[in-house]
Amino acid sequence: MDAPHSERTLSRETVFSGQIIRVEHHQVELENGNTALRECCVHPGGSAVLAVWGGRVLLVRQFRYVVNKELLEIPAGKLKSGEDPKEAALRELREETGAFCEEAVLLGTIYPSPGILSERDYLYFARVSGEGRAEPDPDEFVSSVLLTKEELFKRIHNGEICDSKTICAVFLARGKGLL
Amino acid sequence: MDAPHSERTLSRETVFSGQIIRVEHHQVELENGNTALRECCVHPGGSAVLAVWGGRVLLVRQFRYVVNKELLEIPAGKLKSGEDPKEAALRELREETGAFCEEAVLLGTIYPSPGILSERDYLYFARVSGEGRAEPDPDEFVSSVLLTKEELFKRIHNGEICDSKTICAVFLARGKGLL
Repeated sequence: MDAPHSERTLSRETVFSGQIIRVEHHQVELENGNTALRECCVHPGGSAVLAVWGGRVLLVRQFRYVVNKELLEIPAGKLKSGEDPKEAALRELREETGAFCEEAVLLGTIYPSPGILSERDYLYFARVSGEGRAEPDPDEFVSSVLLTKEELFKRIHNGEICDSKTICAVFLARGKGLL
Repeated sequence: MDAPHSERTLSRETVFSGQIIRVEHHQVELENGNTALRECCVHPGGSAVLAVWGGRVLLVRQFRYVVNKELLEIPAGKLKSGEDPKEAALRELREETGAFCEEAVLLGTIYPSPGILSERDYLYFARVSGEGRAEPDPDEFVSSVLLTKEELFKRIHNGEICDSKTICAVFLARGKGLL
């Protein structure tokens, strides 16, 4: 295989700081010695969990304002500073659905949009062991949806489920024989 | 099923305009009548193609500065204003690898990070029909990599392939019996 590709940072500047993301402009040196600007959306990263409850998969339905659509997704959320990704996944599951799990296994990590967004998501698999009261964030309105494995696959393949982390988690869980 | 969730725009403001993305802050009315701020990274959207060439899958290896890592992905790129997503996918394939295809079928569309990013990606499947000269953008350094189906699955499941659109495209192609 050829040598790995790489780029070297020459300078960096924060050009926007928002509630969730920060935008940085970096001048980089390319492989041929030229320079280029790289626009970087810096994101805290996220965690999500594919949770199985009594033979069905637990999803959440919520309005995603940024894409102007209600989506069906596995429970997920942004990482808080210093938070362990597994704890974050189980916290989001509990807050959004009320379900709790004793343990979770890492399915893998993914980059949702590596051309512009630094976000890295940790994807877990878990089996629900009990149920409490959902406690979503004050600006979060979510409904739990339980789907059989067959319904889940059908909705991915007919396009009803179009959230990329959800599709990735299902594929990874299937590859590990967990689904 | 309960009524769909939704949020209503009260006002919007562009707070950052960059080379690729624009950030908008929207005040929205929530379901309970309260208001909240939604930070929206507005992205032009993208297209990508899972291309098969002589029984193997054609990927590209490139350094992704924003995540500080070299990734293995299906050929992809941002949509140009007014561009047809299928044309964009085949253009990116040609530019990045030199391969060209007569036709492509839509596998599906995905939202990579619907909590913050408006990006929607169109995923295609195609069979390579010929080869010309790669013509990547001046700031783009990519290497073509051909993998058998077995190698592709292995690298997804062992974490070497961690780009979400690539994983989604493989899963969707498999569900349609194309891979």
